[in-house]
Amino acid sequence: MAMPEPLHDIAHLGAVELLTPEPHKALRFFRDLLGMEVVHEASGSVHLRGWGDYAASTLKLTTASAPGVGCIAWRTTSPEALERRAAALSALGLGIDWTNGDFGRGRSFRFRDPDGHIMEIYYEEQRYVAPPGLRSALKNQPQKYTGRGVGVRRLDHLAVLASDVATNRRFAQDILGFQLREQVIFEEGKREIGAWTSPNAVHHQLAYVTDVKGGHGRLHHLSFWVDNRDDVLRAADILSEEGIFIEAGPAKHNNSQGFYLYSYEPGGNRIEVYSGSYLVLAPDWQPVTWNEEERAAGVYWGGALPDSFIQYGTPNIEAGPAGDAPKLPVFF
Amino acid sequence: MAMPEPLHDIAHLGAVELLTPEPHKALRFFRDLLGMEVVHEASGSVHLRGWGDYAASTLKLTTASAPGVGCIAWRTTSPEALERRAAALSALGLGIDWTNGDFGRGRSFRFRDPDGHIMEIYYEEQRYVAPPGLRSALKNQPQKYTGRGVGVRRLDHLAVLASDVATNRRFAQDILGFQLREQVIFEEGKREIGAWTSPNAVHHQLAYVTDVKGGHGRLHHLSFWVDNRDDVLRAADILSEEGIFIEAGPAKHNNSQGFYLYSYEPGGNRIEVYSGSYLVLAPDWQPVTWNEEERAAGVYWGGALPDSFIQYGTPNIEAGPAGDAPKLPVFF
Amino acid sequence: MAMPEPLHDIAHLGAVELLTPEPHKALRFFRDLLGMEVVHEASGSVHLRGWGDYAASTLKLTTASAPGVGCIAWRTTSPEALERRAAALSALGLGIDWTNGDFGRGRSFRFRDPDGHIMEIYYEEQRYVAPPGLRSALKNQPQKYTGRGVGVRRLDHLAVLASDVATNRRFAQDILGFQLREQVIFEEGKREIGAWTSPNAVHHQLAYVTDVKGGHGRLHHLSFWVDNRDDVLRAADILSEEGIFIEAGPAKHNNSQGFYLYSYEPGGNRIEVYSGSYLVLAPDWQPVTWNEEERAAGVYWGGALPDSFIQYGTPNIEAGPAGDAPKLPVFF
Amino acid sequence: MAMPEPLHDIAHLGAVELLTPEPHKALRFFRDLLGMEVVHEASGSVHLRGWGDYAASTLKLTTASAPGVGCIAWRTTSPEALERRAAALSALGLGIDWTNGDFGRGRSFRFRDPDGHIMEIYYEEQRYVAPPGLRSALKNQPQKYTGRGVGVRRLDHLAVLASDVATNRRFAQDILGFQLREQVIFEEGKREIGAWTSPNAVHHQLAYVTDVKGGHGRLHHLSFWVDNRDDVLRAADILSEEGIFIEAGPAKHNNSQGFYLYSYEPGGNRIEVYSGSYLVLAPDWQPVTWNEEERAAGVYWGGALPDSFIQYGTPNIEAGPAGDAPKLPVFF
Repeated sequence: MAMPEPLHDIAHLGAVELLTPEPHKALRFFRDLLGMEVVHEASGSVHLRGWGDYAASTLKLTTASAPGVGCIAWRTTSPEALERRAAALSALGLGIDWTNGDFGRGRSFRFRDPDGHIMEIYYEEQRYVAPPGLRSALKNQPQKYTGRGVGVRRLDHLAVLASDVATNRRFAQDILGFQLREQVIFEEGKREIGAWTSPNAVHHQLAYVTDVKGGHGRLHHLSFWVDNRDDVLRAADILSEEGIFIEAGPAKHNNSQGFYLYSYEPGGNRIEVYSGSYLVLAPDWQPVTWNEEERAAGVYWGGALPDSFIQYGTPNIEAGPAGDAPKLPVFF
Repeated sequence: MAMPEPLHDIAHLGAVELLTPEPHKALRFFRDLLGMEVVHEASGSVHLRGWGDYAASTLKLTTASAPGVGCIAWRTTSPEALERRAAALSALGLGIDWTNGDFGRGRSFRFRDPDGHIMEIYYEEQRYVAPPGLRSALKNQPQKYTGRGVGVRRLDHLAVLASDVATNRRFAQDILGFQLREQVIFEEGKREIGAWTSPNAVHHQLAYVTDVKGGHGRLHHLSFWVDNRDDVLRAADILSEEGIFIEAGPAKHNNSQGFYLYSYEPGGNRIEVYSGSYLVLAPDWQPVTWNEEERAAGVYWGGALPDSFIQYGTPNIEAGPAGDAPKLPVFF
Repeated sequence: MAMPEPLHDIAHLGAVELLTPEPHKALRFFRDLLGMEVVHEASGSVHLRGWGDYAASTLKLTTASAPGVGCIAWRTTSPEALERRAAALSALGLGIDWTNGDFGRGRSFRFRDPDGHIMEIYYEEQRYVAPPGLRSALKNQPQKYTGRGVGVRRLDHLAVLASDVATNRRFAQDILGFQLREQVIFEEGKREIGAWTSPNAVHHQLAYVTDVKGGHGRLHHLSFWVDNRDDVLRAADILSEEGIFIEAGPAKHNNSQGFYLYSYEPGGNRIEVYSGSYLVLAPDWQPVTWNEEERAAGVYWGGALPDSFIQYGTPNIEAGPAGDAPKLPVFF
Repeated sequence: MAMPEPLHDIAHLGAVELLTPEPHKALRFFRDLLGMEVVHEASGSVHLRGWGDYAASTLKLTTASAPGVGCIAWRTTSPEALERRAAALSALGLGIDWTNGDFGRGRSFRFRDPDGHIMEIYYEEQRYVAPPGLRSALKNQPQKYTGRGVGVRRLDHLAVLASDVATNRRFAQDILGFQLREQVIFEEGKREIGAWTSPNAVHHQLAYVTDVKGGHGRLHHLSFWVDNRDDVLRAADILSEEGIFIEAGPAKHNNSQGFYLYSYEPGGNRIEVYSGSYLVLAPDWQPVTWNEEERAAGVYWGGALPDSFIQYGTPNIEAGPAGDAPKLPVFF
């Protein structure tokens, strides 16, 4: 029997809403240190963008009592694809509702992934048109590169925690149509620890990693792209000078070959400045699978990931009643 | 009336055959200076690869009396897509024949683009498995990064010359399903000078630019990717030390925002080492169009492109009988 | 007869005064685009610094009717060295006067070089102590790296024009004790075109190049250091976005192996952002000499230097009455 | 009473002899991975150079039963300076003898530092003249940049272990005339842990750090310069692919602001690939002093230094009879 052709209904990660109990400090972090631009403010939220994002906004900062991730928005490849995916999600009982869309986007379908993260899909997108002071000298660049702070170019990906990685990974593959790029599986293939998936050539746009505390709907990190590894080093200088907590990096992951810098924005969410990695263009990509031994080898080079990298997510919670959260080696 | 959903039958540029009258020197250029690996040799040809290419080979060097481009191979997204595209190409009378496929690839359908360049499509691809001495310490990297020479990571794109850019651009869009990313159009929209197209998120994998000498089937340049702009600078140092002719760069294009270095391999073909640029993930990307004035402004920064950049392609020919080849500003 | 031991009375270039007819725009250029800090303002002048300069200030911007260079200040290696050099300069009739020193510096001896540039030497220097908001997280870094704009680290060197290069070059060597690093000599050794000299390991801190218009006391360019070539590329992006005129680069000089970017600050002075080059630690360094043919080969890579690079200096003047200013190839 | 003017008799670190029990593997490490060139072979030794070293050779690999450092050679600023320093060293009873000089160098005076490291001073130096195949396209570059491996540019510095840092630091300052750049002092100024000194603008060319095992004449690390931080990252990729042990980095030191990568060459000596840092041109530089708390903060960014960084030197020895070697935090 013929394999069905790959589903191609989701185009890319569109925007992520970040919840922060420190809205003023977080705004300063993303605007003044990472160099993003504010494009819109609504009650309790500020919408920002990287200079290379073609959409009006890719980051929504929302004031909340605790850090975490709000709505994760995905753009579909067509209006029909939007309907198809909404139907499939509804059929699974994962749908929430249709909305008129958040800032800059049209009609959107909200749903939950199996772990409980709130997501939405949409097709209509407002292309960013820079105001005079922010127009680039390059006609093909949506916005001026201002030279302020790190200057992150665009939203790249996010990693969320899930209590059951396998179920959520299958959801991403089968229902969203994402390609599985890499995974970490322990205990001779029986226990899925992490899965890196993507709807496009970017190595991963959605990663699921084990929530060792048994929570739901939590965030591991949100990641922004810079073009050169040198930009990541420069980010480390900038964040260090400002007293921002650097959890790990700059260093190079085994997984994804990403060149990373992990910090916590003032509200507590883990934010990555990221470069390197590799594009995946193969239609029949064979996932790269890592086991305990391979992960125990640590990062490729550049220092180890601390235990907090496994233990800490947002919102930060106490370990579940099970209390038997497994002791995992750092597995990214 | 509903727009048809985008065609998504071609996955990516698979391999390019380069004709060279200086096979030994060319081999040295690609292997020792660019740092590619030889994976296969057949009568009159050598197959090479970049350390990051997942396919067995992406460059075929074939001895010939004159430089130029041989067969340009594209991988399809599925077996069905291969059949669909073959049928569509045959229906247009552009088909040549089915073959058993070149080194590392399965059944392939050969055809010509309207300008006469030989291309082929295939689905089956032999994934590269590195021999012991070339295995990477990274499980997700198909081959060791050897540190020899420039160390180009992978084949990125090619630009070919065409006497009628508009016709070939429409062919790329309508028949191959490529998205038009940028174009140069002079005379108030009446004269197409260049078109940059791609089947995936890479900014362009196939560019058509005006053959000012009225030739057919000629090559402008073949381009290899490196991850960082610094790698392009290093390439300039390496090629300069070896007396390789550098035609232009390192500098930054307006078009595609690419950071480029153009040299001629010893056989005469123009070879680019390339980084920067930008990914396109928008399903409804609006092509960026440049006119005479905008192109006359030259490159974004880093020196001008010389007249040879317009006049020279491979094989190098005399201007056609028309003799009235237009004097174009350098338009990339 | 024994050679005298090398003179070592001048430690380094201390500060340069730049005259600008556009003080507000120039301030914005140096502060917001190059990322320097304002440390002091006096009548008609603003004193600035790079984040890595250990002295309180290394750049003085002075409002003037025309662009050009004001006083060029050199720090001596000791109080005794200051007296020795002042005596030597006085003996040659080049002395102007002793002053109490400009901002941040002690007693200073002003003089003119043979071409008429105003210089001064001093020993006492106020070490910079950053105010709270500008303190670096690094104890050995005099000031925070703010991440604003280019972020030039420190003053590196300047090149001045001189009608008689040989005389001024000998002055730099014999009277100031600078080591001759490279020179350009045409006409089989008879005509000195340029000389690059330094009192320390920095490749050159004072260059004399032919004033093709026969002027006196004029500036060719002032240069600021960044640590990585990538920072120079980034500077090109920043200046391009702001509409600053880029005259040449980023590219690599033959001379000094410097990786350069030349722009004009809004008042008209040529400003370089610079990296690469090489340190000279040899006590018996043999000057590298370039002739016509070698210079005609142009820059090492990265585009040519335009004719303005020879013709333009500040203040900008008409060619002298001789009118027979030689047509020189670009010789840097 | 007037301060004496600074002594300026030593120009720079000239060459270091490295002892290795794995001469073939070590040769491969320095030649094929670091990209150095072999210039001379003598009984039991191979002399190598970086492409930017002006001297004929800066590294001598000598076969030995255990790793460690052999003779550390310093070039003087003049023949007179050589005599002056030899006399001063002899007067202290530290002299060994005069020799005719090692490969490429003239008459040399051998001595020991207080800790027992063998050093020598010389003035005559054979300037490197590249053979045809290694001539650079740049007239001012002593040798071609070959693009092989890391491509270290030049010898930068070394750090040696000493049981009594204060005594050796005073020796470097008072007898060799080195400037003290940074130091680590614990116990409220009473216990010197490390001292970074230099005879020139390079931040440090000789560092003394506490030998926690109470040994003598041991090596901590030998360091080679690359121009850009990106080159250090690339070195990490190259060494990782070859299975070379990376002890720490790439990361940024607090001390010296150096951007480092520490590996062990196959014979066991710790080798650093190094960039960044800062030049010191101030004649009255005030040493930067770090205490326990400041050092406990670890490196500036990029991962921690492992305990081996304190414990391991070459030759590797057991802790002395005192057995009470203090537990130090990693202090670099």
